[in-house]
Amino acid sequence: METLDAIRARRNVRDYTADPVSDEDLSRIAEAGWRAPSASNRQHWDFVVVTDRGQLAELATVWQSASHIARAAAAIALVVPRPADDRQAALDQYDLGQATYAMMLAATDLGIGTGHSSVGDHDKARALLGVPATHDVAYLLGVGYPADRPLRPVARPNRRPFDEVVHRGRW
Amino acid sequence: METLDAIRARRNVRDYTADPVSDEDLSRIAEAGWRAPSASNRQHWDFVVVTDRGQLAELATVWQSASHIARAAAAIALVVPRPADDRQAALDQYDLGQATYAMMLAATDLGIGTGHSSVGDHDKARALLGVPATHDVAYLLGVGYPADRPLRPVARPNRRPFDEVVHRGRW
Repeated sequence: METLDAIRARRNVRDYTADPVSDEDLSRIAEAGWRAPSASNRQHWDFVVVTDRGQLAELATVWQSASHIARAAAAIALVVPRPADDRQAALDQYDLGQATYAMMLAATDLGIGTGHSSVGDHDKARALLGVPATHDVAYLLGVGYPADRPLRPVARPNRRPFDEVVHRGRW
Repeated sequence: METLDAIRARRNVRDYTADPVSDEDLSRIAEAGWRAPSASNRQHWDFVVVTDRGQLAELATVWQSASHIARAAAAIALVVPRPADDRQAALDQYDLGQATYAMMLAATDLGIGTGHSSVGDHDKARALLGVPATHDVAYLLGVGYPADRPLRPVARPNRRPFDEVVHRGRW
């Protein structure tokens, strides 16, 4: 898919068909996150790709808005080392956002939907994925083919007016 | 450009030719940020597009690693409302990361390089852009045609080994 079409077609997908996502496609999606930029290229992230249905069902309980993970073909957990201070924490979050969007767009390009979730029960998420105590599972990305309709460019996304958000020269 | 090629071609560009970036292309780049996802779709961001050389030279002084902004054809300032608490601050940073990557990829698709910068002197950045005291200029994105070589897929990016970063099933 052309890049601009993918940018316009990406949307939050939380209902998925029962079709699996191939290992090749999951690797391509993970590759996009692996290539994402980060502050000083420090790459404060690990990604855990989960396709086991039992694990997905359990991961769906780590946050009130993670229920879609149980219906996803796969989930990619974004894991971050515990930050040293608030400044590092902010940069880590920013970098995780970049990696997340990269993976979302790579998925869109393949016709695969994504929907991310926060994590509330960090102990449980760590235990489910075998993540060491030095790290946190920061976000989960549900991955699967959209149950409603294919991913096509969205003409009028639900956003604040463009000219209100984008200023020229000055605020 | 195909999405996968753009994902593989995006790199940090901090040296730019003197060529301007058209208003149409700047709008397309900003559109990608405008379309980015955010927590509960709250869109805690405004983008200020700057092309004035005097403003760019001044913006280049708001952080020790912002000097490339003075050489850029344009900068896009990512502005965020002051967060209510640490939880909101973390989500805002995550969302800004998503919007940043979206704009970087839209630029790559047009053959345009980007390089982002933190902001240290928030008062000066606000004053230069007329941003109200209720908001912070969180990041600057330098935008311009690469001075070194065109954007082409990078075969071996400088990253930790893929199989170290990407785990299957469990950590």
